[in-house]
Amino acid sequence: MAARARPSPFAASLPARADAKAMDAADPLALARNLFSLPPGAIYLDGNSLGALPRATAARLQEVVRDEWGGDLIASWNKHGWIDLARRVGDKIAKLIGAEANTVSVGDSTSIALFKVLADALAHNPGRKTILSERGNFPTDLYMAEGLAALLGQGHRLELVERVESIGDDVAVVMLTHVDYRSGAMHDMASITAKAHAAGARMIWDLAHSAGALPVDLAGAKADYAVGCGYKYLNGGPGAPAFLYVAPRHHESFRQPLQGWLGHAAPFAFEQAYRPAAGIAGATTGTPPILSLAALEIGVDTLLHFPMAELRAKSQALTEIFRTLVQSRAAELGLEGVSPADPEARGSQISFRHEHAYAIVQALIAQGVTGDFRAPDILRFGFAPLYVRYVDAWDAAAYLVDTIESRVFDDEKFRRRQAVT
Amino acid sequence: MAARARPSPFAASLPARADAKAMDAADPLALARNLFSLPPGAIYLDGNSLGALPRATAARLQEVVRDEWGGDLIASWNKHGWIDLARRVGDKIAKLIGAEANTVSVGDSTSIALFKVLADALAHNPGRKTILSERGNFPTDLYMAEGLAALLGQGHRLELVERVESIGDDVAVVMLTHVDYRSGAMHDMASITAKAHAAGARMIWDLAHSAGALPVDLAGAKADYAVGCGYKYLNGGPGAPAFLYVAPRHHESFRQPLQGWLGHAAPFAFEQAYRPAAGIAGATTGTPPILSLAALEIGVDTLLHFPMAELRAKSQALTEIFRTLVQSRAAELGLEGVSPADPEARGSQISFRHEHAYAIVQALIAQGVTGDFRAPDILRFGFAPLYVRYVDAWDAAAYLVDTIESRVFDDEKFRRRQAVT
Repeated sequence: MAARARPSPFAASLPARADAKAMDAADPLALARNLFSLPPGAIYLDGNSLGALPRATAARLQEVVRDEWGGDLIASWNKHGWIDLARRVGDKIAKLIGAEANTVSVGDSTSIALFKVLADALAHNPGRKTILSERGNFPTDLYMAEGLAALLGQGHRLELVERVESIGDDVAVVMLTHVDYRSGAMHDMASITAKAHAAGARMIWDLAHSAGALPVDLAGAKADYAVGCGYKYLNGGPGAPAFLYVAPRHHESFRQPLQGWLGHAAPFAFEQAYRPAAGIAGATTGTPPILSLAALEIGVDTLLHFPMAELRAKSQALTEIFRTLVQSRAAELGLEGVSPADPEARGSQISFRHEHAYAIVQALIAQGVTGDFRAPDILRFGFAPLYVRYVDAWDAAAYLVDTIESRVFDDEKFRRRQAVT
Repeated sequence: MAARARPSPFAASLPARADAKAMDAADPLALARNLFSLPPGAIYLDGNSLGALPRATAARLQEVVRDEWGGDLIASWNKHGWIDLARRVGDKIAKLIGAEANTVSVGDSTSIALFKVLADALAHNPGRKTILSERGNFPTDLYMAEGLAALLGQGHRLELVERVESIGDDVAVVMLTHVDYRSGAMHDMASITAKAHAAGARMIWDLAHSAGALPVDLAGAKADYAVGCGYKYLNGGPGAPAFLYVAPRHHESFRQPLQGWLGHAAPFAFEQAYRPAAGIAGATTGTPPILSLAALEIGVDTLLHFPMAELRAKSQALTEIFRTLVQSRAAELGLEGVSPADPEARGSQISFRHEHAYAIVQALIAQGVTGDFRAPDILRFGFAPLYVRYVDAWDAAAYLVDTIESRVFDDEKFRRRQAVT
């Protein structure tokens, strides 16, 4: 991307571009960016939708394909540890989310993972019929809950509130996304979990926008279950397998209905009746997609090089510089901030509302600044601290302001309704 | 593998090794082997467990990883058609299994796919409570049915018979694997489907050991549903996504409970309530694993170069040469044939029973002949007609006889109990 020739659109009292460059120079995580393969000049603020490509991934996949699959064929299941790959990746993810060892299962999609933990949660509270969640929760979570409730046919219902405050005595399980996919607002995991438990309910956390972006302490928060996504901040690649967590105290009683052969206590005994494997292994269903799983492992390994506290500190500084700059011009540009102003209260993204959000996002993409649009009117910018620079945050803010001021988005090509993404 | 120095262990009236070589020389499919990357000298008779690596796969994956994911990041969902990839692969698989266009959904595992179609089948026959299957069906199919029945809590039961003959009036759905994973015996799809329909039941076919190995005519047989595996004869790679089929006449009423956001009529509208996409698209749950799916597409493309009738003819000839040779020495070696002698009545594999099956399989693998063991006492040899040669079939038969005659398997290292595969 060509350097901006225009003067700064921000007041002199705010950080200048040179300040952002100085922050990059002093950034202890600056070298992490070298571990990723990013298109030259791109300002990529959509790692919360698809994480960037770690440089090591392509070579690892070639190895899995050519040497393992091609060279050792079926023997690779043992020789190259494919049979343990999901467990190994699960244990690595566990370290990123404050989970105990042997509590995280990987495979399937986030939606399927959610179905499994939701079914277990309901089964252990048969007298209670309510799944409590928020209207703004990510739709797939609501759809899966709806689907399970209808399937059970026992009067279960999904109750949606604006914000979980009180938890009634019919609530079997509270299901929330830790960091809101639109606003980036973050729930207090420990306090809501405690509230759920006090009300006799179990607690499921969706970590789609948390895992790999900020410290999560599932064990400390006494969460019952969690699910999360492999292709956002874990940089596992498009459609990377998802993960699920079950607290150790529930392992003995854990049962999930998608009981496939790889979750059997003795999968290769080919018994007629299902006997769940002990512990988290019982959460497995079928054979996991090994190629995608191998890519996910590289994404997770890349994160594990760095202390999560440092990532969080940088993420907060990145989002703060972007938010402060844009907010300084928001009123006159028709932008409305929707992310919490307090960095402690948000995840790693900043969102604004604008009546022309879709067209603005398109115009920014055309200039090399990738954020995304979320219906109906949200511009969302994710800041993956491993590879986004302070100068990217500054430039993105400037491009956003310029784009709206110059009304470049007001062109037919940017105003077409979004078709698929 | 070194050429065998020993004399032929078979009678002179049976095909000699030179005959097998002559069959290879005359084989119209001989060149297909060049499309695969196989370890030099290997005799790989386990393509029914993990299909071989197509040569084109590694390059395609590099492209998806480096150029698409790395180069265009999130824009690849549209720019490189990731959003349509599952549908595109589904339509290609449809051609291999006699299915109409827009009837095959790809993603998830075979187990999950089965759950979806089973749930729809039961929902449309609420007065009937029985899922009818066979004791010898692949365990995951039975486990998933058990799991669904228990979840529904409406008195559904899985009834297992030795062989489906009569179908009672409580049967909602008959669920069978087209080609038995142990014996290779093949069901008559059209006649059993007709029998199920006559009894008022729906019919689900598991095509794990059929798709890509032999002609399947789902539409002609009037099957209601099918599921199948991407990593066996479709050569999609380890844990490749599975597929499911729903007959067009059921599309309008089709509903499945694993209703994730990508099966929504408008996934990017982020609506609170689920509205299934029309047709087969409503069978989708979450985001599919794109890397694994891209590899699967290459596997399917490789198959589509060749007429299925030619593949079937070669598969029958391959299995017949192997079966005839081994059978000629079976009695004296303690082998008992378990696959149908009639090539029309079996799939693309030949299995034998032997009390030392596990040790024999291990000893064969040590000599470069890969088949597999299936508990409790089955030696299984799969003949993928795209890359297995007639001489491989002849050599494998000779190695098998030599191994048992010389009792090389009777060594401690071959007698250890199988741990995982």
